[in-house]
Amino acid sequence: MSIRIGILGYGNLGRGVECAVKQNPDMELAAVFTRRDPADVHIMTETAKVYHVDEAVKMKDEIDVLILCGGSATDLPKQTPEFAQYFNVVDSFDTHAKIPEHFADVDAAAKKSGKIGLISVGWDPGMFSLNRLYSNAILPEGTDYTFWGKGVSQGHSDAVRRIDGVVDARQYTIPVEKALSAVRNGENPVLTTGEKHTREVFVVAEDGADKEKIEKEIKTMPNYFDEYETTVHFISEEQMKAEHAGLPHGGFVIRTGKTGWEQEHSHVIEYSLKLDSNPEFTSSVIAAYARAAYRLNREGQSGCRTVFDIAPAYLTVKSPEELRKHML
Amino acid sequence: MSIRIGILGYGNLGRGVECAVKQNPDMELAAVFTRRDPADVHIMTETAKVYHVDEAVKMKDEIDVLILCGGSATDLPKQTPEFAQYFNVVDSFDTHAKIPEHFADVDAAAKKSGKIGLISVGWDPGMFSLNRLYSNAILPEGTDYTFWGKGVSQGHSDAVRRIDGVVDARQYTIPVEKALSAVRNGENPVLTTGEKHTREVFVVAEDGADKEKIEKEIKTMPNYFDEYETTVHFISEEQMKAEHAGLPHGGFVIRTGKTGWEQEHSHVIEYSLKLDSNPEFTSSVIAAYARAAYRLNREGQSGCRTVFDIAPAYLTVKSPEELRKHML
Repeated sequence: MSIRIGILGYGNLGRGVECAVKQNPDMELAAVFTRRDPADVHIMTETAKVYHVDEAVKMKDEIDVLILCGGSATDLPKQTPEFAQYFNVVDSFDTHAKIPEHFADVDAAAKKSGKIGLISVGWDPGMFSLNRLYSNAILPEGTDYTFWGKGVSQGHSDAVRRIDGVVDARQYTIPVEKALSAVRNGENPVLTTGEKHTREVFVVAEDGADKEKIEKEIKTMPNYFDEYETTVHFISEEQMKAEHAGLPHGGFVIRTGKTGWEQEHSHVIEYSLKLDSNPEFTSSVIAAYARAAYRLNREGQSGCRTVFDIAPAYLTVKSPEELRKHML
Repeated sequence: MSIRIGILGYGNLGRGVECAVKQNPDMELAAVFTRRDPADVHIMTETAKVYHVDEAVKMKDEIDVLILCGGSATDLPKQTPEFAQYFNVVDSFDTHAKIPEHFADVDAAAKKSGKIGLISVGWDPGMFSLNRLYSNAILPEGTDYTFWGKGVSQGHSDAVRRIDGVVDARQYTIPVEKALSAVRNGENPVLTTGEKHTREVFVVAEDGADKEKIEKEIKTMPNYFDEYETTVHFISEEQMKAEHAGLPHGGFVIRTGKTGWEQEHSHVIEYSLKLDSNPEFTSSVIAAYARAAYRLNREGQSGCRTVFDIAPAYLTVKSPEELRKHML
């Protein structure tokens, strides 16, 4: 029997989950829930239906795992504990500072309902976090580096869009090649985020807007841009559509460390991602962890979990015997 | 209380485990067991003692995890099941084809004794296997690539040493940069092991040996060299000591895959290691997994496990709360 997946929220991430479910032979999409009028939401899977979110709880016995595809700012802190009362849930909550609080809320709800709540699944938090943990456990004496990009930062793009005279904007975060090389060479440089990354902004301005003023406002924006080397390009709406429609991203997690009785040997562990589509990759990670949530709950487990708590074998459709024979 | 570690076999790997234990604040080295005369084995840890291997079973209540540092060809197939009768054990069994059989033997012994037997721990098998599993689970539609090196292959070095007229030899496996680039660019090339790697051999020959004959014998050696582009250098014994004493290694595990409704987006997941000391890095992975073996057994679990079965949180000395707060 397939794992029956529900999706709550049909934006980029929800669509990504729909695509990921299609690639996993042991899963099927059961339903998509939306806050919009369901008649206005058109999904790609012919065998699944769209419902209003208010219908979700009624369908709790028809869905094995509900994947919450809302935003971390206001949706997930409310939705994940709420729906963990009825479903195994997976979210991609990514407000790092608020994870402990979110964990506690989801844990309480999921323990009460006997369900699994798997939070902060994706690539950062997610795969990057896992690689930080593994490499720290292996090399206790060492230094961690995370670089992001090249990729589109939605937060920074939105911040530029709020500037007077800006019609549209896309911001790319770009890792500094020289800093990456220094880290890989084991030089253990001390680097600020601004020394590790530059920012490149593409802006569509209103006709007659003061471009010089816009550029200055971007480059001096506190926290977002003021500590970075930032380049601004003004382009046409057509160029924006043609050249900047995608949502690529990626990055590097590197740990350099020492071993030996006198710490005489150096090692570099590097994990990197180069992603054409940030939301589709995140969704693909979520789909694999939905399988884990389903299996853990079938074993009788309940409560909140993160990627740190999940044995890798739970993520794959392959049997333990196959894994040992072909993948170990 | 510290996790009390025993080491069985004091070669490169055993010494590496000794160094790793020193770096982990929650572990202490309790004893080293050897098949040699204990008086001839000099360890670095002042607080630990060396015993003959025949004394090991008597000390079963003084050791929490016994780490087996013998070879995969003849030592581990016998030792791991044998000592799993008395101890939680960890080994680095790396004969890929015989893992299912080894697993079954260790599982039977460990289930009977109520202990944990954790096998095939290191980087390949080990961290490379984990990365294959994670990236396959995330990207079901894709292609796997493993490159090894640059590093010393003990097996290939030994094979060259057996040739008539050869005093000493060191073989480096080197990944082909062009093949690596093609993979990273998502070109999905179909590559034989020989197209992915070249081999470089440094040889100390006997005085008056026929170097041309040695070189030909190396380059045409079936399985080991015949399918590879191989370079042979004749050097002096002094050069061998000065320039080739280390055991560096490393490699790359890459998965490229597609997502999207029509598989329109490409992704590259890459994990790489650059290691000054192959045995010390392997030992460092083993030490982290020894912690997991100890904890699993304290929870009442028993039987054989591999890295696939271990939730990452078991590997680190940090608490789940710390992990969520600082590493997720």
